[in-house]
Amino acid sequence: MTKTGAAGALVSVEIDRSSDVPIHIQIAGSIRTAIQSRRLQPGIRLASTRALARDWNVSRNTVLHVFENLMSEGLVQSRVGSGTYVASVPTERRPSTKKHQNGDRGETETKYPFKGLSRRGRSLVAQSQLGLSEKPVAFMPDVPDIRAFPMRSWLRLMNEVSGRLKGDILISITNTGYDPLREAIANHLNLTRGLSCTKDDIIITTGTQQSVDLVTRLLLERGDPVWVEEPGYMGTRATLLANGCAPYPIPADTDGMNVEDGIANAPVPRMVVISPSRHYPLGGRLSAERRQALLELSKQSGTWILEDDYDSDFDYGSGSPSALQADDTEGRVILIGTFSKTLLPSFRLGYIVSPPDLAHDFAHARSVMDRHAPIFEQLVLSEFMHRGLYATHLRTMRSLYCERQAALVDRLDKELGYIPNPSELASGMHIVLPLSDDVDDRETVRRLQADGTVARPLSIYYANKKRRSGIILGFAGYTPEEINLSRLDVLR
Amino acid sequence: MTKTGAAGALVSVEIDRSSDVPIHIQIAGSIRTAIQSRRLQPGIRLASTRALARDWNVSRNTVLHVFENLMSEGLVQSRVGSGTYVASVPTERRPSTKKHQNGDRGETETKYPFKGLSRRGRSLVAQSQLGLSEKPVAFMPDVPDIRAFPMRSWLRLMNEVSGRLKGDILISITNTGYDPLREAIANHLNLTRGLSCTKDDIIITTGTQQSVDLVTRLLLERGDPVWVEEPGYMGTRATLLANGCAPYPIPADTDGMNVEDGIANAPVPRMVVISPSRHYPLGGRLSAERRQALLELSKQSGTWILEDDYDSDFDYGSGSPSALQADDTEGRVILIGTFSKTLLPSFRLGYIVSPPDLAHDFAHARSVMDRHAPIFEQLVLSEFMHRGLYATHLRTMRSLYCERQAALVDRLDKELGYIPNPSELASGMHIVLPLSDDVDDRETVRRLQADGTVARPLSIYYANKKRRSGIILGFAGYTPEEINLSRLDVLR
Repeated sequence: MTKTGAAGALVSVEIDRSSDVPIHIQIAGSIRTAIQSRRLQPGIRLASTRALARDWNVSRNTVLHVFENLMSEGLVQSRVGSGTYVASVPTERRPSTKKHQNGDRGETETKYPFKGLSRRGRSLVAQSQLGLSEKPVAFMPDVPDIRAFPMRSWLRLMNEVSGRLKGDILISITNTGYDPLREAIANHLNLTRGLSCTKDDIIITTGTQQSVDLVTRLLLERGDPVWVEEPGYMGTRATLLANGCAPYPIPADTDGMNVEDGIANAPVPRMVVISPSRHYPLGGRLSAERRQALLELSKQSGTWILEDDYDSDFDYGSGSPSALQADDTEGRVILIGTFSKTLLPSFRLGYIVSPPDLAHDFAHARSVMDRHAPIFEQLVLSEFMHRGLYATHLRTMRSLYCERQAALVDRLDKELGYIPNPSELASGMHIVLPLSDDVDDRETVRRLQADGTVARPLSIYYANKKRRSGIILGFAGYTPEEINLSRLDVLR
Repeated sequence: MTKTGAAGALVSVEIDRSSDVPIHIQIAGSIRTAIQSRRLQPGIRLASTRALARDWNVSRNTVLHVFENLMSEGLVQSRVGSGTYVASVPTERRPSTKKHQNGDRGETETKYPFKGLSRRGRSLVAQSQLGLSEKPVAFMPDVPDIRAFPMRSWLRLMNEVSGRLKGDILISITNTGYDPLREAIANHLNLTRGLSCTKDDIIITTGTQQSVDLVTRLLLERGDPVWVEEPGYMGTRATLLANGCAPYPIPADTDGMNVEDGIANAPVPRMVVISPSRHYPLGGRLSAERRQALLELSKQSGTWILEDDYDSDFDYGSGSPSALQADDTEGRVILIGTFSKTLLPSFRLGYIVSPPDLAHDFAHARSVMDRHAPIFEQLVLSEFMHRGLYATHLRTMRSLYCERQAALVDRLDKELGYIPNPSELASGMHIVLPLSDDVDDRETVRRLQADGTVARPLSIYYANKKRRSGIILGFAGYTPEEINLSRLDVLR
C-alpha cells in the first residue's frame, strides 16, 4: 500500500479520472481513509510533493491542494525544512457504532471533530448586513416613495396575466429568467443607457446582492484583488469579503473613482466594482478621462469591470451619460441593475447584463445556486414594461423626486446654511450633509434616531480608518411635510 | 524593506488588525505590491514559513494561505526542498496608463493576466443542472399536477391580501422571511412531522437548491467529506461539488442509506445529506436501526445531518414517520423542505428548519447572499396556510396521486408484468421501473423522447460507475389517460 524510504512514504491512491469528483478530493479521500484505518501510521513522513505528483501522475498543484485539505482537517502536519507527516489521529474520530442507550443522554461526553460553522461560513456571517435601520421614515436613504407605487395597476395586471400561468412556465423557466421580461429590459436599456444588448445577454436576479454574489463566485478567486470605491456600497464589499476576495478601497471624489490613484498605488485588479453614472454615496459622475483610463486598464489587463448602474433612472435634467458598458469593446464590462429603487425593494428583482461570451456561464452557475427567480413578479413586470407603464412610472417618479430634491436643497440652504455641490444634484435619491470630521456621525445618527429621525452616517461607507463624517439624507420617499430639518438642529 | 540572508528574505508588511480584510489577504497584498514594484526582485528566496510567521506575528497557517494565494497568481514559485522564490513578473502586468487612441483598437495586442472564469466559477459551471428535459409531459417526475393547482383561490387571496402590501414590508422583511409565513410553516411541521419548532427556527428560501447552497456555504469547508445517497439527488451533489466539498456516495437500499456501510468504509463526514422519510429516487424509508446509528454518529462526531424532507406530504395510508429532526437531541439536524412539489415549482419557495443555535447565522449569511425571498408569494402562501387551504389542497392531491399510483401499478402489472416493491409505494410521486443492468437506460430514454414520452434514466442518479439501470416513471402530474404504457414496449 505504501512504500517508505529515506525519501518519505509514497501512498497508493485510487483515481477515477472520469469521475466528476475533482482529483485532489479523490486523492485526499484515499489518504484520509488510509490514515483513519491506520494503514498510514502517525509520524510517517510523506514523500515530497514532486515525488507524489510523479507517482500519482498529477500536477504539483494538485498535491499541494491535497496537503492543504488534509492539513486543515488536522490529519497531516508540515514541519519546515523537513516535510509533511501523518498526524496522530485520536481513535475517537471513528464514530462509535454502539447503539444509543436511552437514559444515558446526559452522561455521554460528546467529542466533536467538526465544530460549528466552516471558515467560509464565518466569513459570510461576519459580513452580515443586518442591523441597519430599515424603516421607511425620513431620511432613510435608498428607498423609493412606496406610497407612489402604482399598486392598483400592478394588481390589475396581475389578474390579467394570471391566465398565462399555465403549462411549462409553472414547472420551470430558463435559469436566466422569463424571456419576455429579458426582452423588455434589453429594450429599455438600449433606449436609456446606450447599450446594444439582446435578451440573451440579460440574466434576471433577485437583486443587486445576488447579482454581486453570482458575479463574484463565477469570476473571482479567493485572494483576488478587487478595486472598490472609497467610500462605497457596503453590500458589495461584504459579498467580496465573504467570498474571500481582497477589496482595495480606491478613493472617490466629485469625478468618481480616482482611477489614476488606483493604477499608481494598488495592485492590478481582477475586477473593478464601480458606479460610474452616479458614485454611491457621494454622487459624483466618473469623468471622461477616468472612464477612458479604466477601459484601457481593462483592455490591457483583462480586468473585469462590474458596473453598478443602480441609479441611472433618476437624473434631473442633465441626462444620464451612457453606460460604461456601451463603450466596452472587449466584452469585459458586466452591468448590474435593480428594480428595488424604481419599483419596490421587497419584490427582489434585479438583472445582470452580461458580455455575450459569459451569458451561458451565468445560466449554468444559476442552475446550481437557486435555479431562477420566481415567475409571477417576472410575468407582471414584463407586461408592465411592454405596455409602457414602467416608462410612465419612471417619468412620474423622476419629476416627483426632482421637486423633493429642490425643496430639500432650498431648506438646507435657508435653515442650515448648507449648499450642496451641483455635481451631487444631477441625479440621485439622497444628499450628503457633511459634518466636521471630528464629529462622530454614528453618534449623531443615534441621537437623531432616539428622536424618531432615521438617517445613515457617511463614515460607515468607508473601509479605511480615514473617514469623512456626514449624514446621508434620503429625500425620495418623503413629502416635504414629512421632512423636518429642525431635528437636524443637533448638527449646528 | 526586506532583509535577505542565508535563511531567505523577510518582508515587512503592513497589517491592520482592526480591519475587516482578512490578515492573509492584507499580507498577500503587501507582498504583491512589493513584487510588482520590483522592491522584491525576481529570484529572491523568501524566508521559511516559520520565520515569516514569527516576523509577522501570525500563525503558520496564515503564511501558508498567503503563499497559496501568491502562487495561484504566479507571483511566487515553490521549489521542493529549497523554498519559495519570487517569480519573474512580466512588466506587462502593470497596466499601461497611456490614453486609449481611437483607431488602433484592432492593432493593440491585449495581454490578459486574468483570464475567463475563476476556478470556483468553473466548478459552478461544471455542475450545471441544465439539459434535463423539463416538460410537464408523462412521465416527467418531480412535478405536481399543475392543472390541479387552485389558481383561482390563489388569485382571489392575492387580491385580498394585497391591501397589506404597504409600509415597512415593502422596503424589507427579515432575512429569514415573512414572519406569519414562518409561523404557519412551523405549525404545519409540528403537526405533520412531529417537530416542536417555532417560527424563529424557520428560514424561507427560494427552494431546495438555495437551501443546500446556503447550508453548504455556512457549514462546510472545501474538501470536507459529506455522505450522500447512492443513488441520490443530483442537485445536492452538484451544489456540494460546486462548493469544493467531497461527496462520498453511500449505497442505499430498500431501508434507505446504508449507514453501516458508510461507517465501515467512508471517512467520518462533516455532514450527511439524506432523505430519510422517502429515499430519493428509490423510495425506501430509513430503517429504525439506521436512524439510530446516524443520530449516534452525529452525536459522537458532531456530524451535521441535512434532512431532505422533500416528499413527506404524499404518503398513501401508512402515515409518514416523524422527521429525523424530531429525534435529534444534539441540535445537529437541519431539515429542508420545498413547496415545489405541493404547490408549483416556479413559485420558488422552500424552507430550512434550523437547530435553534444556527438560526441567527442563517439570517446573517442570507443578508450577504441575496437579502430575502420576494415578499408577495410569501404573503399569499401565509394566508393560504393560515386559512387551512394548504391542508385541504394537500389532502386533495394526496388522494388524487394515490389513485394515479394505483392505476399505474395495475397497468404495470397487466401490461408489463412488473410488480413494484411495496416499500416504494408507501409514498411518492414516481415509480422506478428497473431494467436489466446491461441496458443503457439513457439510450432508452432518448428513444422514448423521440416518441414524445419524457422520462428520466435511473443511472444518472449514481455518482459511481456501478449503476443500476431503470426508468423513473413520474405519475403525479398526469391523468391515467395521459399515461401510455404501450410506449414502454421498447422495454420488453
